[in-house]
Amino acid sequence: MSAVSFQGERGAYSEEAATMFFGRSVVTKPCRTVKEVFQSVEEKSAEYGIVPAENSLEGSINQTYDLLLETSLKICGEVKVRVRHCLLAIPGTNIEELRVVYSHPQALAQCASFLQKLGLETIPAYDTAGSAKMLIDKQLKAGAIASERAADIYGLKVLRKGIEDFPENFTRFFVLGRTDVSPTGKDRTSIVFATTHTPGSLHGALGELASRQINLTKIESRPIRGTPWEYNFFVDFEGHQNDSKVSEAINVLRNSTAMLKILGSYPRAD
Amino acid sequence: MSAVSFQGERGAYSEEAATMFFGRSVVTKPCRTVKEVFQSVEEKSAEYGIVPAENSLEGSINQTYDLLLETSLKICGEVKVRVRHCLLAIPGTNIEELRVVYSHPQALAQCASFLQKLGLETIPAYDTAGSAKMLIDKQLKAGAIASERAADIYGLKVLRKGIEDFPENFTRFFVLGRTDVSPTGKDRTSIVFATTHTPGSLHGALGELASRQINLTKIESRPIRGTPWEYNFFVDFEGHQNDSKVSEAINVLRNSTAMLKILGSYPRAD
Repeated sequence: MSAVSFQGERGAYSEEAATMFFGRSVVTKPCRTVKEVFQSVEEKSAEYGIVPAENSLEGSINQTYDLLLETSLKICGEVKVRVRHCLLAIPGTNIEELRVVYSHPQALAQCASFLQKLGLETIPAYDTAGSAKMLIDKQLKAGAIASERAADIYGLKVLRKGIEDFPENFTRFFVLGRTDVSPTGKDRTSIVFATTHTPGSLHGALGELASRQINLTKIESRPIRGTPWEYNFFVDFEGHQNDSKVSEAINVLRNSTAMLKILGSYPRAD
Repeated sequence: MSAVSFQGERGAYSEEAATMFFGRSVVTKPCRTVKEVFQSVEEKSAEYGIVPAENSLEGSINQTYDLLLETSLKICGEVKVRVRHCLLAIPGTNIEELRVVYSHPQALAQCASFLQKLGLETIPAYDTAGSAKMLIDKQLKAGAIASERAADIYGLKVLRKGIEDFPENFTRFFVLGRTDVSPTGKDRTSIVFATTHTPGSLHGALGELASRQINLTKIESRPIRGTPWEYNFFVDFEGHQNDSKVSEAINVLRNSTAMLKILGSYPRAD
Protein backbone atom coordinates (compact mmCIF):
# COMPACT_ATOMS: atom_id res chain seq x y z
CA MET A 1 0.00 0.00 0.00
CA SER A 2 1.09 3.59 -0.41
CA ALA A 3 2.27 5.76 2.43
CA VAL A 4 0.55 6.91 5.63
CA SER A 5 1.69 10.34 6.76
CA PHE A 6 2.02 11.38 10.42
CA GLN A 7 3.16 14.47 12.31
CA GLY A 8 6.53 14.37 13.99
CA GLU A 9 9.85 12.60 13.64
CA ARG A 10 10.20 8.81 13.44
CA GLY A 11 9.32 7.29 16.82
CA ALA A 12 6.43 9.73 17.45
CA TYR A 13 3.29 8.41 19.14
CA SER A 14 1.40 9.15 15.92
CA GLU A 15 3.70 6.80 13.99
CA GLU A 16 2.82 4.16 16.59
CA ALA A 17 -0.86 4.89 15.88
CA ALA A 18 -0.24 4.28 12.15
CA THR A 19 1.35 0.91 12.95
CA MET A 20 -1.51 -0.06 15.29
CA PHE A 21 -4.14 0.78 12.68
CA PHE A 22 -2.49 -0.44 9.46
CA GLY A 23 -0.14 -3.15 10.80
CA ARG A 24 3.65 -3.52 11.05
CA SER A 25 4.25 -3.45 7.30
CA VAL A 26 2.83 0.05 6.83
CA VAL A 27 5.03 2.59 5.04
CA THR A 28 5.01 5.79 7.11
CA LYS A 29 5.94 9.29 6.04
CA PRO A 30 6.94 11.93 8.66
CA CYS A 31 5.54 15.47 8.30
CA ARG A 32 6.68 18.55 10.19
CA THR A 33 3.20 19.84 11.05
CA VAL A 34 -0.37 18.58 11.39
CA LYS A 35 -1.25 20.84 8.45
CA GLU A 36 1.30 19.04 6.26
CA VAL A 37 -0.37 15.72 7.15
CA PHE A 38 -3.69 17.05 5.84
CA GLN A 39 -1.98 18.44 2.71
CA SER A 40 -0.12 15.20 1.96
CA VAL A 41 -3.42 13.28 1.77
CA GLU A 42 -5.25 16.06 -0.09
CA GLU A 43 -2.44 16.22 -2.67
CA LYS A 44 -2.27 12.40 -2.82
CA SER A 45 1.39 12.12 -1.81
CA ALA A 46 0.00 9.93 1.00
CA GLU A 47 -2.98 7.57 0.93
CA TYR A 48 -3.95 8.19 4.57
CA GLY A 49 -2.88 10.58 7.32
CA ILE A 50 -2.78 10.20 11.11
CA VAL A 51 -3.60 13.27 13.22
CA PRO A 52 -4.01 13.61 17.02
CA ALA A 53 -7.61 14.38 18.06
CA GLU A 54 -7.52 14.43 21.86
CA ASN A 55 -5.49 13.37 24.84
CA SER A 56 -7.22 11.91 27.89
CA LEU A 57 -5.39 14.37 30.21
CA GLU A 58 -4.85 17.47 28.10
CA GLY A 59 -7.97 17.51 25.94
CA SER A 60 -8.49 18.23 22.27
CA ILE A 61 -5.78 19.14 19.80
CA ASN A 62 -7.16 22.47 18.60
CA GLN A 63 -5.16 22.60 15.39
CA THR A 64 -6.62 19.30 14.18
CA TYR A 65 -10.17 20.48 14.82
CA ASP A 66 -9.57 23.79 13.06
CA LEU A 67 -8.15 21.98 10.02
CA LEU A 68 -11.04 19.46 9.95
CA LEU A 69 -13.39 22.38 9.38
CA GLU A 70 -11.75 23.31 6.08
CA THR A 71 -10.59 20.01 4.60
CA SER A 72 -12.36 17.87 2.01
CA LEU A 73 -10.88 14.75 3.70
CA LYS A 74 -12.98 12.27 5.67
CA ILE A 75 -12.29 10.75 9.06
CA CYS A 76 -12.18 7.06 8.20
CA GLY A 77 -10.83 5.57 11.41
CA GLU A 78 -9.72 6.20 14.98
CA VAL A 79 -6.89 4.73 17.09
CA LYS A 80 -6.26 5.06 20.82
CA VAL A 81 -2.59 4.89 21.85
CA ARG A 82 -1.39 4.48 25.43
CA VAL A 83 1.12 7.28 26.08
CA ARG A 84 4.01 6.08 28.22
CA HIS A 85 6.63 8.80 28.49
CA CYS A 86 10.30 8.04 29.12
CA LEU A 87 13.18 10.28 30.15
CA LEU A 88 15.90 9.77 27.54
CA ALA A 89 19.52 10.89 27.26
CA ILE A 90 22.59 10.06 25.19
CA PRO A 91 24.39 6.92 26.43
CA GLY A 92 26.82 7.65 29.28
CA THR A 93 24.61 10.35 30.83
CA ASN A 94 23.41 9.92 34.43
CA ILE A 95 20.14 11.37 35.65
CA GLU A 96 22.05 13.49 38.24
CA GLU A 97 23.96 15.29 35.47
CA LEU A 98 20.80 16.60 33.78
CA ARG A 99 19.90 20.27 34.13
CA VAL A 100 17.38 20.74 31.30
CA VAL A 101 14.79 18.60 29.55
CA TYR A 102 13.40 19.11 26.04
CA SER A 103 10.01 17.97 24.78
CA HIS A 104 6.63 18.98 23.40
CA PRO A 105 4.88 21.33 25.90
CA GLN A 106 2.08 18.78 26.38
CA ALA A 107 4.57 16.04 27.29
CA LEU A 108 6.36 18.43 29.68
CA ALA A 109 2.99 19.26 31.26
CA GLN A 110 2.11 15.58 31.62
CA CYS A 111 5.36 14.89 33.51
CA ALA A 112 5.32 18.12 35.56
CA SER A 113 5.46 16.46 39.03
CA PHE A 114 8.32 14.15 38.07
CA LEU A 115 10.34 17.01 36.54
CA GLN A 116 9.69 19.30 39.49
CA LYS A 117 10.94 16.67 41.95
CA LEU A 118 14.21 16.43 40.00
CA GLY A 119 14.43 20.23 39.76
CA LEU A 120 14.88 20.10 35.99
CA GLU A 121 14.40 23.14 33.77
CA THR A 122 11.97 22.49 30.90
CA ILE A 123 12.48 23.73 27.35
CA PRO A 124 9.54 23.47 24.94
CA ALA A 125 10.14 21.81 21.55
CA TYR A 126 7.84 21.08 18.61
CA ASP A 127 7.88 17.35 19.06
CA THR A 128 8.63 14.50 21.52
CA ALA A 129 10.56 12.27 19.10
CA GLY A 130 12.14 15.38 17.55
CA SER A 131 13.65 16.39 20.88
CA ALA A 132 15.04 12.84 21.24
CA LYS A 133 16.60 13.08 17.78
CA MET A 134 18.09 16.49 18.66
CA LEU A 135 20.03 15.04 21.63
CA ILE A 136 21.82 12.62 19.27
CA ASP A 137 22.29 15.12 16.43
CA LYS A 138 23.83 17.75 18.73
CA GLN A 139 25.32 15.29 21.27
CA LEU A 140 23.62 17.31 24.04
CA LYS A 141 23.99 16.37 27.73
CA ALA A 142 20.30 17.03 28.32
CA GLY A 143 17.12 15.03 28.75
CA ALA A 144 14.28 14.49 26.32
CA ILE A 145 10.81 13.13 26.99
CA ALA A 146 9.63 10.71 24.33
CA SER A 147 8.52 7.12 23.81
CA GLU A 148 10.61 4.01 24.40
CA ARG A 149 10.39 3.44 20.66
CA ALA A 150 12.07 6.80 20.05
CA ALA A 151 14.94 5.66 22.32
CA ASP A 152 15.36 2.50 20.19
CA ILE A 153 15.28 4.41 16.92
CA TYR A 154 17.83 7.08 17.94
CA GLY A 155 20.07 4.91 20.16
CA LEU A 156 19.29 6.81 23.37
CA LYS A 157 19.36 5.47 26.92
CA VAL A 158 16.07 5.19 28.84
CA LEU A 159 16.79 6.79 32.24
CA ARG A 160 13.23 6.44 33.59
CA LYS A 161 10.09 4.78 32.19
CA GLY A 162 6.43 5.79 32.74
CA ILE A 163 7.19 9.24 34.20
CA GLU A 164 3.75 10.76 33.45
CA ASP A 165 1.83 12.13 36.48
CA PHE A 166 -1.33 10.20 35.61
CA PRO A 167 -1.02 6.65 34.29
CA GLU A 168 -4.39 6.76 32.46
CA ASN A 169 -2.81 8.65 29.60
CA PHE A 170 -4.15 7.92 26.11
CA THR A 171 -4.16 9.84 22.86
CA ARG A 172 -6.92 9.31 20.34
CA PHE A 173 -5.91 9.77 16.70
CA PHE A 174 -8.02 10.22 13.59
CA VAL A 175 -7.19 8.38 10.37
CA LEU A 176 -7.85 10.71 7.43
CA GLY A 177 -8.62 9.52 3.93
CA ARG A 178 -10.22 10.76 0.73
CA THR A 179 -13.33 8.55 0.69
CA ASP A 180 -16.18 7.59 3.03
CA VAL A 181 -16.04 4.19 4.72
CA SER A 182 -18.94 1.72 4.85
CA PRO A 183 -20.82 0.81 8.05
CA THR A 184 -19.45 -1.99 10.27
CA GLY A 185 -22.32 -2.01 12.77
CA LYS A 186 -20.11 -0.51 15.50
CA ASP A 187 -19.35 2.96 14.19
CA ARG A 188 -18.93 6.51 15.30
CA THR A 189 -19.80 9.68 13.36
CA SER A 190 -18.17 13.09 13.72
CA ILE A 191 -19.91 16.27 12.60
CA VAL A 192 -19.37 20.00 13.11
CA PHE A 193 -22.10 22.61 13.23
CA ALA A 194 -22.70 26.25 14.15
CA THR A 195 -25.93 27.11 15.95
CA THR A 196 -28.17 30.01 15.07
CA HIS A 197 -28.14 32.99 17.46
CA THR A 198 -31.24 32.11 19.44
CA PRO A 199 -31.33 31.08 23.11
CA GLY A 200 -31.46 27.32 23.60
CA SER A 201 -30.17 26.59 20.08
CA LEU A 202 -27.39 24.22 21.24
CA HIS A 203 -29.88 22.45 23.50
CA GLY A 204 -32.25 22.12 20.55
CA ALA A 205 -29.53 20.70 18.30
CA LEU A 206 -28.46 18.09 20.86
CA GLY A 207 -32.14 17.24 21.30
CA GLU A 208 -32.24 15.93 17.71
CA LEU A 209 -29.71 13.30 18.77
CA ALA A 210 -31.14 12.61 22.25
CA SER A 211 -34.72 12.17 21.00
CA ARG A 212 -33.49 9.45 18.61
CA GLN A 213 -31.46 7.66 21.35
CA ILE A 214 -28.23 8.53 19.54
CA ASN A 215 -25.45 8.43 22.14
CA LEU A 216 -23.29 11.59 22.20
CA THR A 217 -19.70 10.64 23.04
CA LYS A 218 -17.94 14.00 22.76
CA ILE A 219 -18.65 17.69 22.25
CA GLU A 220 -15.96 20.27 21.63
CA SER A 221 -16.44 23.97 21.01
CA ARG A 222 -14.00 25.98 18.90
CA PRO A 223 -14.15 29.73 18.31
CA ILE A 224 -15.32 30.91 14.89
CA ARG A 225 -12.48 32.96 13.44
CA GLY A 226 -13.45 36.53 12.71
CA THR A 227 -16.57 36.54 14.93
CA PRO A 228 -15.40 36.67 18.58
CA TRP A 229 -17.41 34.72 21.20
CA GLU A 230 -19.23 32.58 18.67
CA TYR A 231 -18.44 28.88 18.37
CA ASN A 232 -18.51 25.84 16.13
CA PHE A 233 -19.47 22.60 17.89
CA PHE A 234 -17.64 19.40 17.01
CA VAL A 235 -19.82 16.49 18.05
CA ASP A 236 -19.09 12.74 18.05
CA PHE A 237 -21.86 10.20 18.45
CA GLU A 238 -22.43 6.48 18.01
CA GLY A 239 -23.78 5.22 14.69
CA HIS A 240 -23.02 5.56 10.98
CA GLN A 241 -24.28 8.37 8.73
CA ASN A 242 -26.03 5.70 6.60
CA ASP A 243 -28.08 4.46 9.62
CA SER A 244 -31.64 5.70 9.19
CA LYS A 245 -31.95 7.45 12.57
CA VAL A 246 -28.53 9.11 12.18
CA SER A 247 -29.23 10.35 8.65
CA GLU A 248 -32.64 11.61 9.83
CA ALA A 249 -31.06 13.56 12.71
CA ILE A 250 -28.42 15.01 10.38
CA ASN A 251 -31.07 16.11 7.87
CA VAL A 252 -33.06 17.90 10.58
CA LEU A 253 -29.89 19.51 11.96
CA ARG A 254 -28.85 20.67 8.49
CA ASN A 255 -32.04 22.73 8.30
CA SER A 256 -31.98 24.05 11.88
CA THR A 257 -28.30 25.04 12.21
CA ALA A 258 -26.35 27.86 10.56
CA MET A 259 -23.78 25.40 9.15
CA LEU A 260 -23.30 21.64 9.29
CA LYS A 261 -20.56 19.42 7.89
CA ILE A 262 -20.16 15.64 8.22
CA LEU A 263 -16.53 14.87 9.05
CA GLY A 264 -16.89 11.12 8.67
CA SER A 265 -18.29 7.82 9.96
CA TYR A 266 -15.76 5.20 11.02
CA PRO A 267 -15.38 2.04 13.14
CA ARG A 268 -15.18 2.75 16.90
CA ALA A 269 -11.84 1.89 18.54
CA ASP A 270 -13.18 0.89 21.97
CA MET B 1 -5.35 48.47 47.30
CA SER B 2 -3.14 45.43 47.57
CA ALA B 3 -1.62 43.66 44.59
CA VAL B 4 -3.21 42.00 41.56
CA SER B 5 -1.18 39.05 40.26
CA PHE B 6 -0.91 38.12 36.58
CA GLN B 7 0.92 35.50 34.51
CA GLY B 8 3.92 36.59 32.51
CA GLU B 9 6.55 39.28 32.54
CA ARG B 10 5.73 42.99 32.77
CA GLY B 11 4.11 44.12 29.53
CA ALA B 12 2.06 40.91 29.16
CA TYR B 13 -1.49 41.18 27.82
CA SER B 14 -2.73 39.95 31.22
CA GLU B 15 -1.08 42.94 32.93
CA GLU B 16 -2.99 45.13 30.48
CA ALA B 17 -6.18 43.31 31.55
CA ALA B 18 -5.41 44.16 35.20
CA THR B 19 -5.04 47.84 34.29
CA MET B 20 -8.26 47.84 32.27
CA PHE B 21 -10.24 46.27 35.13
CA PHE B 22 -8.72 47.99 38.17
CA GLY B 23 -7.48 51.26 36.66
CA ARG B 24 -4.06 52.78 36.02
CA SER B 25 -3.07 52.96 39.70
CA VAL B 26 -3.27 49.19 40.24
CA VAL B 27 -0.23 47.48 41.76
CA THR B 28 0.52 44.40 39.65
CA LYS B 29 2.60 41.37 40.55
CA PRO B 30 4.08 39.14 37.82
CA CYS B 31 3.90 35.33 38.26
CA ARG B 32 5.75 32.71 36.22
CA THR B 33 2.75 30.41 35.71
CA VAL B 34 -1.05 30.51 35.75
CA LYS B 35 -0.90 28.12 38.72
CA GLU B 36 1.18 30.68 40.67
CA VAL B 37 -1.52 33.31 40.01
CA PHE B 38 -4.12 31.03 41.62
CA GLN B 39 -1.77 30.29 44.54
CA SER B 40 -0.92 33.96 45.16
CA VAL B 41 -4.62 34.77 45.70
CA GLU B 42 -5.31 31.58 47.68
CA GLU B 43 -2.35 32.33 49.98
CA LYS B 44 -3.33 36.02 50.17
CA SER B 45 -0.07 37.40 48.81
CA ALA B 46 -2.33 39.03 46.18
CA GLU B 47 -5.88 40.34 46.57
CA TYR B 48 -6.95 39.40 43.05
CA GLY B 49 -5.48 37.41 40.18
CA ILE B 50 -5.89 37.73 36.40
CA VAL B 51 -5.93 34.54 34.34
CA PRO B 52 -6.59 34.05 30.60
CA ALA B 53 -9.86 32.18 29.90
CA GLU B 54 -10.14 32.11 26.11
CA ASN B 55 -8.84 33.70 22.96
CA SER B 56 -11.23 34.50 20.12
CA LEU B 57 -8.98 32.70 17.60
CA GLU B 58 -7.29 29.94 19.58
CA GLY B 59 -10.02 28.98 22.03
CA SER B 60 -9.92 28.19 25.74
CA ILE B 61 -6.82 28.19 27.90
CA ASN B 62 -6.99 24.62 29.18
CA GLN B 63 -4.74 25.17 32.18
CA THR B 64 -7.01 27.87 33.56
CA TYR B 65 -10.07 25.64 33.27
CA ASP B 66 -8.32 22.69 34.92
CA LEU B 67 -7.24 24.91 37.84
CA LEU B 68 -10.74 26.42 38.23
CA LEU B 69 -12.03 22.93 38.97
CA GLU B 70 -9.86 22.59 42.09
CA THR B 71 -9.62 26.11 43.49
CA SER B 72 -11.70 27.66 46.27
CA LEU B 73 -11.41 31.04 44.51
CA LYS B 74 -14.35 32.74 42.77
CA ILE B 75 -14.51 34.33 39.36
CA CYS B 76 -15.48 37.88 40.28
CA GLY B 77 -14.96 39.67 36.98
CA GLU B 78 -14.08 39.36 33.30
CA VAL B 79 -12.07 41.60 30.94
CA LYS B 80 -11.73 41.42 27.17
CA VAL B 81 -8.43 42.68 25.77
CA ARG B 82 -7.78 43.40 22.09
CA VAL B 83 -4.61 41.50 21.15
CA ARG B 84 -2.45 43.46 18.75
CA HIS B 85 0.84 41.67 18.16
CA CYS B 86 4.03 43.51 17.17
CA LEU B 87 7.32 42.24 15.83
CA LEU B 88 10.02 43.60 18.15
CA ALA B 89 13.81 43.64 18.03
CA ILE B 90 16.67 45.40 19.80
CA PRO B 91 17.31 48.91 18.42
CA GLY B 92 19.53 48.91 15.34
CA THR B 93 18.10 45.65 13.97
CA ASN B 94 16.46 45.64 10.53
CA ILE B 95 13.68 43.24 9.61
CA GLU B 96 15.87 41.78 6.80
CA GLU B 97 18.51 40.69 9.34
CA LEU B 98 16.10 38.50 11.31
CA ARG B 99 16.34 34.72 11.01
CA VAL B 100 14.38 33.55 14.07
CA VAL B 101 11.45 34.83 16.11
CA TYR B 102 10.65 33.96 19.73
CA SER B 103 7.22 34.03 21.35
CA HIS B 104 4.48 32.06 23.07
CA PRO B 105 3.30 29.26 20.70
CA GLN B 106 -0.19 30.82 20.57
CA ALA B 107 1.24 34.18 19.45
CA LEU B 108 3.42 32.43 16.85
CA ALA B 109 0.32 30.57 15.61
CA GLN B 110 -1.67 33.81 15.41
CA CYS B 111 1.00 35.42 13.19
CA ALA B 112 1.74 32.31 11.11
CA SER B 113 1.02 33.86 7.68
CA PHE B 114 3.11 36.96 8.39
CA LEU B 115 6.06 34.87 9.65
CA GLN B 116 5.85 32.46 6.72
CA LYS B 117 5.95 35.31 4.20
CA LEU B 118 9.17 36.56 5.81
CA GLY B 119 10.58 33.01 5.95
CA LEU B 120 11.36 33.33 9.67
CA GLU B 121 12.04 30.32 11.89
CA THR B 122 9.84 30.25 14.99
CA ILE B 123 11.07 29.27 18.44
CA PRO B 124 8.45 28.65 21.15
CA ALA B 125 8.86 30.46 24.49
CA TYR B 126 6.76 30.51 27.66
CA ASP B 127 5.60 34.06 27.27
CA THR B 128 5.17 36.96 24.81
CA ALA B 129 6.58 39.72 27.06
CA GLY B 130 9.19 37.26 28.39
CA SER B 131 10.56 36.71 24.90
CA ALA B 132 10.77 40.52 24.45
CA LYS B 133 12.71 40.80 27.73
CA MET B 134 15.06 38.01 26.64
CA LEU B 135 16.13 39.92 23.51
CA ILE B 136 17.32 42.79 25.71
CA ASP B 137 18.84 40.60 28.44
CA LYS B 138 20.86 38.53 25.96
CA GLN B 139 21.25 41.30 23.33
CA LEU B 140 19.99 38.83 20.71
CA LYS B 141 19.67 39.78 17.03
CA ALA B 142 16.31 38.01 16.80
CA GLY B 143 12.65 38.94 16.73
CA ALA B 144 10.04 38.64 19.46
CA ILE B 145 6.28 38.85 19.15
CA ALA B 146 4.69 40.83 21.98
CA SER B 147 2.59 43.93 22.65
CA GLU B 148 3.57 47.51 21.89
CA ARG B 149 3.56 48.05 25.66
CA ALA B 150 6.24 45.36 26.05
CA ALA B 151 8.37 47.29 23.51
CA ASP B 152 8.03 50.46 25.63
CA ILE B 153 8.88 48.67 28.87
CA TYR B 154 11.99 46.89 27.55
CA GLY B 155 13.21 49.59 25.15
CA LEU B 156 12.74 47.51 22.02
CA LYS B 157 12.06 48.76 18.49
CA VAL B 158 8.65 47.99 16.92
CA LEU B 159 9.47 46.63 13.42
CA ARG B 160 5.84 45.84 12.47
CA LYS B 161 2.53 46.48 14.19
CA GLY B 162 -0.69 44.40 14.01
CA ILE B 163 0.95 41.35 12.42
CA GLU B 164 -1.76 38.85 13.47
CA ASP B 165 -3.48 36.92 10.65
CA PHE B 166 -6.98 37.80 11.88
CA PRO B 167 -7.64 41.30 13.20
CA GLU B 168 -10.61 40.21 15.37
CA ASN B 169 -8.24 38.92 18.03
CA PHE B 170 -9.39 39.26 21.64
CA THR B 171 -8.47 37.48 24.84
CA ARG B 172 -11.00 37.16 27.64
CA PHE B 173 -9.53 37.12 31.15
CA PHE B 174 -11.09 36.08 34.46
CA VAL B 175 -10.55 38.14 37.61
CA LEU B 176 -10.16 35.75 40.56
CA GLY B 177 -10.92 36.70 44.15
CA ARG B 178 -11.73 35.08 47.45
CA THR B 179 -15.36 36.23 47.84
CA ASP B 180 -18.56 36.24 45.81
CA VAL B 181 -19.66 39.49 44.17
CA SER B 182 -23.17 40.95 44.34
CA PRO B 183 -25.55 41.18 41.37
CA THR B 184 -25.34 44.23 39.09
CA GLY B 185 -28.31 43.34 36.86
CA LYS B 186 -26.02 42.54 33.91
CA ASP B 187 -24.10 39.50 35.09
CA ARG B 188 -22.73 36.22 33.90
CA THR B 189 -22.39 32.98 35.85
CA SER B 190 -19.82 30.23 35.27
CA ILE B 191 -20.37 26.68 36.51
CA VAL B 192 -18.76 23.29 35.89
CA PHE B 193 -20.55 19.96 36.00
CA ALA B 194 -20.07 16.30 35.09
CA THR B 195 -23.03 14.47 33.60
CA THR B 196 -24.18 11.02 34.63
CA HIS B 197 -23.46 8.17 32.22
CA THR B 198 -26.85 8.02 30.55
CA PRO B 199 -27.61 8.92 26.92
CA GLY B 200 -28.96 12.45 26.54
CA SER B 201 -27.62 13.60 29.92
CA LEU B 202 -25.84 16.70 28.52
CA HIS B 203 -28.95 17.57 26.54
CA GLY B 204 -31.02 17.20 29.71
CA ALA B 205 -28.67 19.42 31.73
CA LEU B 206 -28.71 22.19 29.09
CA GLY B 207 -32.50 21.87 29.04
CA GLU B 208 -32.65 23.13 32.64
CA LEU B 209 -31.16 26.41 31.36
CA ALA B 210 -33.08 26.56 28.06
CA SER B 211 -36.48 25.90 29.66
CA ARG B 212 -35.90 28.90 31.96
CA GLN B 213 -34.82 31.19 29.06
CA ILE B 214 -31.31 31.38 30.55
CA ASN B 215 -28.98 32.29 27.69
CA LEU B 216 -25.97 29.95 27.37
CA THR B 217 -22.93 31.97 26.21
CA LYS B 218 -20.21 29.29 26.26
CA ILE B 219 -19.70 25.57 26.77
CA GLU B 220 -16.29 23.96 27.07
CA SER B 221 -15.53 20.29 27.68
CA ARG B 222 -12.40 19.16 29.50
CA PRO B 223 -11.30 15.56 30.05
CA ILE B 224 -11.71 14.14 33.55
CA ARG B 225 -8.24 13.07 34.68
CA GLY B 226 -7.99 9.39 35.46
CA THR B 227 -11.15 8.39 33.55
CA PRO B 228 -10.36 8.58 29.81
CA TRP B 229 -13.11 9.75 27.42
CA GLU B 230 -15.26 11.29 30.16
CA TYR B 231 -15.64 15.04 30.42
CA ASN B 232 -16.43 17.96 32.72
CA PHE B 233 -18.51 20.71 31.12
CA PHE B 234 -17.69 24.33 31.85
CA VAL B 235 -20.75 26.42 31.09
CA ASP B 236 -21.23 30.22 31.07
CA PHE B 237 -24.69 31.77 30.98
CA GLU B 238 -26.33 35.14 31.52
CA GLY B 239 -27.65 35.98 34.97
CA HIS B 240 -26.46 35.93 38.60
CA GLN B 241 -26.56 32.89 40.91
CA ASN B 242 -28.83 34.94 43.25
CA ASP B 243 -31.46 35.45 40.47
CA SER B 244 -34.39 33.19 41.23
CA LYS B 245 -34.49 31.39 37.87
CA VAL B 246 -30.70 30.85 37.88
CA SER B 247 -30.64 29.51 41.44
CA GLU B 248 -33.58 27.25 40.60
CA ALA B 249 -31.78 25.84 37.53
CA ILE B 250 -28.58 25.29 39.56
CA ASN B 251 -30.51 23.46 42.29
CA VAL B 252 -32.12 21.11 39.79
CA LEU B 253 -28.74 20.54 38.07
CA ARG B 254 -27.07 19.80 41.39
CA ASN B 255 -29.42 16.85 41.86
CA SER B 256 -29.34 15.59 38.28
CA THR B 257 -25.58 15.76 37.58
CA ALA B 258 -22.70 13.70 38.99
CA MET B 259 -20.88 16.86 40.18
CA LEU B 260 -21.60 20.59 40.05
CA LYS B 261 -19.54 23.57 41.21
CA ILE B 262 -20.38 27.26 40.91
CA LEU B 263 -17.26 29.10 39.74
CA GLY B 264 -18.72 32.58 40.21
CA SER B 265 -21.18 35.26 39.12
CA TYR B 266 -19.72 38.51 37.85
CA PRO B 267 -20.53 41.61 35.76
CA ARG B 268 -20.49 40.94 31.99
CA ALA B 269 -17.78 42.74 30.03
CA ASP B 270 -19.68 43.23 26.76
